[in-house]
Amino acid sequence: MTTAAGILARCDELARHSSLPNALIERVYLSPEHAAVNALAAEWMTAAGLATWQDAAGNQCGRLEGAAPGLPALLLGSHLDTVPAAGRYDGILGVLLAIAVAERLALSGRPLPFALEVAAFGDEEGTRFGTTLLGSRALAGTWQNEWWGLLDANGVSLDAAYRAFGLDPALIGEAARTPVELIGYLEAHIEQGPVLDDAGLALGVVSSIAGARRFQVVIEGAAGHSGTPWALRRDALAGASEVILAIESIAREAKLIGTVGHLALFPDAVNVIPGRVEFSLDLRGEFDPQRDRAWALIEQTAEQICERRGLTLTSVQTHGAPAAHCSPHLRAAVATGIRLAGGESSPTLFSMAGHDAMAIAALTDIGMLFVRCLGGVSHHPDESVTEADVAVALDAFEAAVLALADQYDADEMDSEFDARAALR
Amino acid sequence: MTTAAGILARCDELARHSSLPNALIERVYLSPEHAAVNALAAEWMTAAGLATWQDAAGNQCGRLEGAAPGLPALLLGSHLDTVPAAGRYDGILGVLLAIAVAERLALSGRPLPFALEVAAFGDEEGTRFGTTLLGSRALAGTWQNEWWGLLDANGVSLDAAYRAFGLDPALIGEAARTPVELIGYLEAHIEQGPVLDDAGLALGVVSSIAGARRFQVVIEGAAGHSGTPWALRRDALAGASEVILAIESIAREAKLIGTVGHLALFPDAVNVIPGRVEFSLDLRGEFDPQRDRAWALIEQTAEQICERRGLTLTSVQTHGAPAAHCSPHLRAAVATGIRLAGGESSPTLFSMAGHDAMAIAALTDIGMLFVRCLGGVSHHPDESVTEADVAVALDAFEAAVLALADQYDADEMDSEFDARAALR
Repeated sequence: MTTAAGILARCDELARHSSLPNALIERVYLSPEHAAVNALAAEWMTAAGLATWQDAAGNQCGRLEGAAPGLPALLLGSHLDTVPAAGRYDGILGVLLAIAVAERLALSGRPLPFALEVAAFGDEEGTRFGTTLLGSRALAGTWQNEWWGLLDANGVSLDAAYRAFGLDPALIGEAARTPVELIGYLEAHIEQGPVLDDAGLALGVVSSIAGARRFQVVIEGAAGHSGTPWALRRDALAGASEVILAIESIAREAKLIGTVGHLALFPDAVNVIPGRVEFSLDLRGEFDPQRDRAWALIEQTAEQICERRGLTLTSVQTHGAPAAHCSPHLRAAVATGIRLAGGESSPTLFSMAGHDAMAIAALTDIGMLFVRCLGGVSHHPDESVTEADVAVALDAFEAAVLALADQYDADEMDSEFDARAALR
Repeated sequence: MTTAAGILARCDELARHSSLPNALIERVYLSPEHAAVNALAAEWMTAAGLATWQDAAGNQCGRLEGAAPGLPALLLGSHLDTVPAAGRYDGILGVLLAIAVAERLALSGRPLPFALEVAAFGDEEGTRFGTTLLGSRALAGTWQNEWWGLLDANGVSLDAAYRAFGLDPALIGEAARTPVELIGYLEAHIEQGPVLDDAGLALGVVSSIAGARRFQVVIEGAAGHSGTPWALRRDALAGASEVILAIESIAREAKLIGTVGHLALFPDAVNVIPGRVEFSLDLRGEFDPQRDRAWALIEQTAEQICERRGLTLTSVQTHGAPAAHCSPHLRAAVATGIRLAGGESSPTLFSMAGHDAMAIAALTDIGMLFVRCLGGVSHHPDESVTEADVAVALDAFEAAVLALADQYDADEMDSEFDARAALR
């Protein structure tokens, strides 16, 4: 049976499938590395007793039947793709915990009142095409046909990447699941924040997930020789620097997080004034209206900065999601799981990071279990978890599924009781 | 005989040799495009009556003998390489004017008291290896062996690029000329500033050239998930933005020009806090001590910014040159040339932009003729000159050479007179 040490060894094995040299990890949607880790996940799902398939969006899936074939399923999942220069646990740990939980339940022989499915999503980070959650949104049935034209850094369209991966874009609808097929979704994930580490706790229950809005901002000035006098300069990078500092100050004031993670300048030469700067903005917070007001203020301030500097500003939203709230009964199941696994308390956390659960919330109820990551560090090679925490997470995740099974059995009995009462 | 229109047609022809698509121009040192434009320049030099050769640094050279073979030479030159997304006149116009002047003098049959040489330098901008003036510094004999290890963006060393171009790094010394071989250097160049255009004048005399210091600045923070709370963020790009604005304000105050033209961030992903930012700084001004004091203040301010943000700062100087001053007799010859070509006045200009003449100043006396460029725009596809200005520049450049020849003849007579006087 897969132990915590076994799960960590699998994280290490997956980390070897990377497009970057020098032990740096990058694994993007529809890449050869994606195919390789899907094959590994399928192998581990099969060993756990699951029937496996790769869906029409390149998500690797597995299913363990419940007490009877064809029951609605509890879906467990997370993602196998990464950011550039990533850690080895973000997403990945959740997939491997899900497979290990399924293995334990399969071996236990206990018939569950629902089927158990595992989804290893192919794209959560959006590294390759700039649009996140492509894998989970395909499964949730919220795929947008306009995405087919998205281009990666090499000019390859999403449509072409699907074909190169051996998938047929015309069949994307087959990846979509319906609400009646599922009873809910549970995801385990590293916290990607410092709350658990600061509190000295291994696990936490997620209350809701921040909705991020992402923008692509373009500032246009005029390229020119680096000897050009101040009065004639229209330096797009100087303007962008001022805008970036304004974003920081406005977001901070509004208790939001704002990140400019990507920036490119043109022509990008030592002795040429930057004539054009493009950058991304990721803006997220607990309350959507607050976030939307902050964006309006950022846009207005940036326009003033650009006007003063003789620059022009354009921005487009590339992603937008409302905050997603975890269902009370799934939160309760996760809290019960933590308690049964010996957790002294089960703190409730708000997630600033986005997760596949956000996309799945469009389809079914969601719940999330957070696992402590050291120093809150993630999206970085230093991302780390302890074997002890993974062991207790595995126990808690299994116990949460069993708590749901108990709840489900009781609900069924209630329904039967109600039905009988109605007949009286 | 080559006319102003012919020179502009040659500029257009050279512009077609580019490594960029969509009619954008980029032509870097030791590239296939470099070889192609050298071949064209050699063809035009030959047609002008010059003996031609490509020197050991990839500079395309030509020589017209004077009244007797083997006389010391007046060197005319500029460069054929470009920045990315360049204009079609920066450097190039000076080379083509030099060839056309040599052609006129060859056709005139007038024996000159010196030989006339033309140099089309292969690297002035430093686009490929980050270090400028490689062509003219090889000719000036100020080549540094440490440059052989410089790498381009693809990791190709300067040494390897020499070999790939068919040059032998061991022979670089053969490109070096000695002071006794030359009587001086004249360069025609677009102004790359607005002074002539604002004054409504076609031509100007250069007094001196700003000495630039260039730095590579690295700011290190910590990469992390874009949901990381403010207290835990060590965002290298937010720090760099603050430093870039400090550079702007300090340089402006000190009447210097400062340009951050190149910037790269890592890992450069929408949902990851930038953990590292590298950028270039080009700092230039008329007075070296002022410039050096401003750099010290910039460094101190940047360190304070980084300390406050939990970032670390490192910087290395990648280039440094003192301001270069044009020789009085060459300035006088250029002013005479402008006057003889019908210029109503010959304004004296200070050059904020660097030029090959700066490197050649280590070898021989220098003088420069500036040609109006529209709006002062350069290092940009919109860089432009008028045919009328090119026509008067050609006349003035030829007249400057002839003025020097007259001066040289008079000096020779003086010397003979002095020698005879000494015998009495």
